[in-house]
Amino acid sequence: MAVPSGTPRPVAGSRTLRLLLSYDGTGLHGWQVQPDVATVQGYLLEAARPLFGPAVRAVGASRTDAGVHALRQTVSLSGDSRLPPSAVQAALNARLPHSVRVMAATEAPPGFDARRAALGKRYAYLIDNGPVAVPLARRWAWHVAVPLDAGAMRTALAALRGRHDFSAFCAAPGREADPACRVHAVRVVRRKALLVVLVSADRFLHHMVRNVVGSAVEVGRGVREPAWLAAVLAGRDRRRAGPTAPAHGLVLVRVRYPAGGC
Amino acid sequence: MAVPSGTPRPVAGSRTLRLLLSYDGTGLHGWQVQPDVATVQGYLLEAARPLFGPAVRAVGASRTDAGVHALRQTVSLSGDSRLPPSAVQAALNARLPHSVRVMAATEAPPGFDARRAALGKRYAYLIDNGPVAVPLARRWAWHVAVPLDAGAMRTALAALRGRHDFSAFCAAPGREADPACRVHAVRVVRRKALLVVLVSADRFLHHMVRNVVGSAVEVGRGVREPAWLAAVLAGRDRRRAGPTAPAHGLVLVRVRYPAGGC
Repeated sequence: MAVPSGTPRPVAGSRTLRLLLSYDGTGLHGWQVQPDVATVQGYLLEAARPLFGPAVRAVGASRTDAGVHALRQTVSLSGDSRLPPSAVQAALNARLPHSVRVMAATEAPPGFDARRAALGKRYAYLIDNGPVAVPLARRWAWHVAVPLDAGAMRTALAALRGRHDFSAFCAAPGREADPACRVHAVRVVRRKALLVVLVSADRFLHHMVRNVVGSAVEVGRGVREPAWLAAVLAGRDRRRAGPTAPAHGLVLVRVRYPAGGC
Repeated sequence: MAVPSGTPRPVAGSRTLRLLLSYDGTGLHGWQVQPDVATVQGYLLEAARPLFGPAVRAVGASRTDAGVHALRQTVSLSGDSRLPPSAVQAALNARLPHSVRVMAATEAPPGFDARRAALGKRYAYLIDNGPVAVPLARRWAWHVAVPLDAGAMRTALAALRGRHDFSAFCAAPGREADPACRVHAVRVVRRKALLVVLVSADRFLHHMVRNVVGSAVEVGRGVREPAWLAAVLAGRDRRRAGPTAPAHGLVLVRVRYPAGGC
């Protein structure tokens, strides 16, 4: 398996595993390690240090925000370890809190970087669209009591397909070196009161899905016409888009890599 | 609408509402009010007292156990109140914790008793059957890591259909006056790693669904033959059945009433 160009050179004697991580983001301060708060990367490094040594590194394909969940986040974990992947998985799960689980662990080529090697990601945004919030959905769905027009949302979101400058939906437009993303698919699915917005793209800007969903909901509520979303995209001005949808409705569903590769 | 015989006579000046309640049973000590612990009935009575007076009564169609969830529990709420049902619903939701919600409130004939009037109930039991527990399913699914044979479980559970003495699946067989239940439907549905057992019956004995599922899982694991479940049922001996499945996988899905009636 070819190591994608641009990945850091492997540390001498180190080894890399590819992990599939699932987490309930409620109460977690997102992926990235930070002092004094619970983060997924922080928990993972702490659990992995006894196995991989003090120089252990963990790179997540997505730097999920505080409160965001993951079904299959992909992580490259590198360091010094001779344990087989299944033993690493069991040892990590024994040390991690139950809100974070290693669903799978496989050997990866040294230098595999889950973030740089990723071809694309898929997110699901869940909306509980009944008049009263269903308690069992409260941790992973945004409650919007106003009935949403899924058809109008679908029409509006179709404009996002393809390669565009997504500055209009970026939390910090100035900070992104490259505001271009290629959206492979956008779907809006309704199952009774549950509305799911699925977005697949090669890359995502900061808060992109949450800003897209916040704008799509403005269309679904009838506050804006479907064509408005295309105009917002073309305007490349964050101030013209809708509000940011809350973090707890967002789930990283999967990360895509080259076929057969990592 | 005829008031079913055997229901208590309405208190003079009182009025009855029919509520649909949804709750996340995590951390709750079940339906029935008890001193010093959080229960659904306790929360509801506390929220309803300012509206319905000190003699307020709340009867749940199902006395769900500690940790058991509900999508649509039906409750008869009686007392003195002149507020329209929608105002009662809003006022109760303003006072209840977010884990308990009134999804709907409608006028019911005085004396309507949600428990006595019920024709039947449907429960779903959810099993997370992947090798590692999915964090987002942890609150409402029992994690069984061993792959279960859904076909074998289906075959075994088919024996429960119809009217039988369910003493074999009752937590306290001696305490039930009538051990006979008519099971209308039993279904086993698999969606990827999620396995759902759905049971509809006219009535349920204490822990009945959890004991049935615990036994069906023995069959699914291959520890028992499918025919064993029919033999356990016929034996009417709790000690021959499998272990009780944990409470957190059980969800009361709906309660059925005579068409057009309450």
